[in-house]
Amino acid sequence: MNAEIISVGTELLLGQVVNTDTAIVAQALSGLGINLWYSAVVGDNAQRLKSAVEAAIARSDLLIMTGGLGPTADDLTKETTAAAAGKKLVLHQESLERIRTYFNEKTVSKYQEKQAWLPEGCTVLQNDNGTAPGCAFQAENGCTVMMFPGPPSELEPMLQNYGVPYLKRGQESVIVSHNIHIYGRGEAPVAQMMDDLLQGENPTLAPYAKEGECYLRVTAKAKNEEQANEMCAPVIAEVKKRLGEFVYGVDVGTLEQLVVEELAKQGKTLAAAESCTGGLLSKRITDVPGSSAVFQMGCVTYANEAKEALLDVPGETLREYGAVSEETARAMAEGILRRSGAHLGLGITGIAGPGGGTEAKPVGLIYIALSDGKNTWVTERRPLGRTKNRAWHRHCAASQALDMVRRYLAGLPVTVK
Amino acid sequence: MNAEIISVGTELLLGQVVNTDTAIVAQALSGLGINLWYSAVVGDNAQRLKSAVEAAIARSDLLIMTGGLGPTADDLTKETTAAAAGKKLVLHQESLERIRTYFNEKTVSKYQEKQAWLPEGCTVLQNDNGTAPGCAFQAENGCTVMMFPGPPSELEPMLQNYGVPYLKRGQESVIVSHNIHIYGRGEAPVAQMMDDLLQGENPTLAPYAKEGECYLRVTAKAKNEEQANEMCAPVIAEVKKRLGEFVYGVDVGTLEQLVVEELAKQGKTLAAAESCTGGLLSKRITDVPGSSAVFQMGCVTYANEAKEALLDVPGETLREYGAVSEETARAMAEGILRRSGAHLGLGITGIAGPGGGTEAKPVGLIYIALSDGKNTWVTERRPLGRTKNRAWHRHCAASQALDMVRRYLAGLPVTVK
Repeated sequence: MNAEIISVGTELLLGQVVNTDTAIVAQALSGLGINLWYSAVVGDNAQRLKSAVEAAIARSDLLIMTGGLGPTADDLTKETTAAAAGKKLVLHQESLERIRTYFNEKTVSKYQEKQAWLPEGCTVLQNDNGTAPGCAFQAENGCTVMMFPGPPSELEPMLQNYGVPYLKRGQESVIVSHNIHIYGRGEAPVAQMMDDLLQGENPTLAPYAKEGECYLRVTAKAKNEEQANEMCAPVIAEVKKRLGEFVYGVDVGTLEQLVVEELAKQGKTLAAAESCTGGLLSKRITDVPGSSAVFQMGCVTYANEAKEALLDVPGETLREYGAVSEETARAMAEGILRRSGAHLGLGITGIAGPGGGTEAKPVGLIYIALSDGKNTWVTERRPLGRTKNRAWHRHCAASQALDMVRRYLAGLPVTVK
Repeated sequence: MNAEIISVGTELLLGQVVNTDTAIVAQALSGLGINLWYSAVVGDNAQRLKSAVEAAIARSDLLIMTGGLGPTADDLTKETTAAAAGKKLVLHQESLERIRTYFNEKTVSKYQEKQAWLPEGCTVLQNDNGTAPGCAFQAENGCTVMMFPGPPSELEPMLQNYGVPYLKRGQESVIVSHNIHIYGRGEAPVAQMMDDLLQGENPTLAPYAKEGECYLRVTAKAKNEEQANEMCAPVIAEVKKRLGEFVYGVDVGTLEQLVVEELAKQGKTLAAAESCTGGLLSKRITDVPGSSAVFQMGCVTYANEAKEALLDVPGETLREYGAVSEETARAMAEGILRRSGAHLGLGITGIAGPGGGTEAKPVGLIYIALSDGKNTWVTERRPLGRTKNRAWHRHCAASQALDMVRRYLAGLPVTVK
């Protein structure tokens, strides 16, 4: 079954908004074993959209449209797609009712009502997170056409709760993928180590870079999930054997998810003192639902006074070694540990840039300390002459801090050469 | 001049990675007045990529490729595109030299060397942030073909520093766009208020939703920038007149950028105490370069003990009203103000979910307090029966806190009905 996606919206072509919808839909399709072979973005232009839709319906078994279902005049996905498929729009009373209750208002403006007009005879996909419903129908030539709203917070649940069940009818083969997450080794050296495995046909193994990390994706196509998993298993085992401690997990999602789960398993708590990462580390940890059970407290101490007042970093340490130093990172980790009573304390201090760098302390120089009360380990990150931006330095420093916790909890050496 | 983008990478079709490259390129093109009329994603499949490239070269004046320039075997953009355009690849010594120095190694692996092979006679676009160089050349039919690496941190600077200058030669018309940023009013009501203005041809006005906010985009096409700006000005003025205090700026980027700039202008400092947002607010503020001058400190106090220890939130307040209450938010804002000595203190407490909600205190109930030492204002956010996720609640609460600061600094009522 060949599928394609058309995302609608001039904002996507103007670069105003990043197209996350394609990724969301693509993930769902690959889980269903539906082969996505093309994805495109078309602006809010009726002619161009019409020809793109006609071409897609002609050549594909499944067309998924995202965006352009909204209340405003430039939302023309339904009108154009229905026309291209030779369907007229009819008012769907139930959807109109949902829109009314959503706003708990008596009357619905013509803008809002527009969203309740849907292709005749379609299956309505209810929107539990917004006003514009989605829909699914068959074109004359048998191509399945589905439409979803653009905002990811509306698209994702609608796709999971109503779209995927609709699609699940009658799939022959399943694609199963597993991601082997790697921290501490780059894409190219990893690829070199896996050279022979990268030649595999089914399962395939492919390396992907991810900000400051990389991962290997094992993908097998089979009759059923169990069979596909059996095909992936030996490849995963071999990769783990070759990469050892640098594999932080398979399908664990993110370092922060892994760390939160491990802390919970071991009944340990964590606290973080951040300077240059400015709360990013705490934010990433608390992105994980349930993190409140393991994350005791975080302090964002930019100013030296804050480092002294909140973390009892000795004034001499700051004066003698400077705010960006191994000693300060160490004092921050030990300070937050004392203040919080957590089992583990992290301290991060460095120069994220763009300003503030010097010859001796360049932008990108960051010290990360982990303390368990008995020992304190410090990792120094140096830019290595690669110009990276503020967001990059902050993200990588937070990742490295998480990896130090991961290694500590796994009983591995906390710092790596 | 009609342009299209082809992003290469199976990971984009598997939904493993979000395609930010298209947005980055699209923004640059619209700034140059180049009309992007199509964008597509193709997997790491030589045949399919070849036919997509051939079609693009045949129908467009400019083809921009992103991704697939890397060291691994499935990076086949250069090979395939060069073949489709009838060019052969030659080894570019200077690029090879750059790769060697990047890794400061004597020898370069065959994987790394692969990146230095470029279409003969092309203009090489140097990569200051990674190993894979980009390139630009003319196909036989005159179509300009450009290739950029996939990682945004490499693509963006290469595009700005080398790609845009290359493209700037000989443009007749310029598109100028201005974004009018709105907080506190949704897309649909805004669209309704602007009904007549949305009908405009040149300049055009279009509404866009953005997580928890929306904005209006004014776009004019003219001979030169000055002329285009003159065309936009009256529309911007009229929109501001109609929306008043809900317009937080034009082309200001984000609420956090605006707030940091305003604080700096007024010589004021800010401190934040976060519970449910878990550091997101501090993170967003410190995303802004130079925020260290205005952001005094942040505390992430999940646990009640942390609220008492760090912020002196009275135990009675927590017991009597609960951690999620107007009173606790107020005490957090006043507590961080006292502890930090900043001019303004923010306190956020609520239930981000997915767990922890009750009948009386549902997921999405969040209290946000702003204190200047004299007065403390509290905003209550209620979910309004809309099921949103954890990330949404956290993002919106942080945005609302920033808007309260924005309103305070502008001398507007801090809280809105």
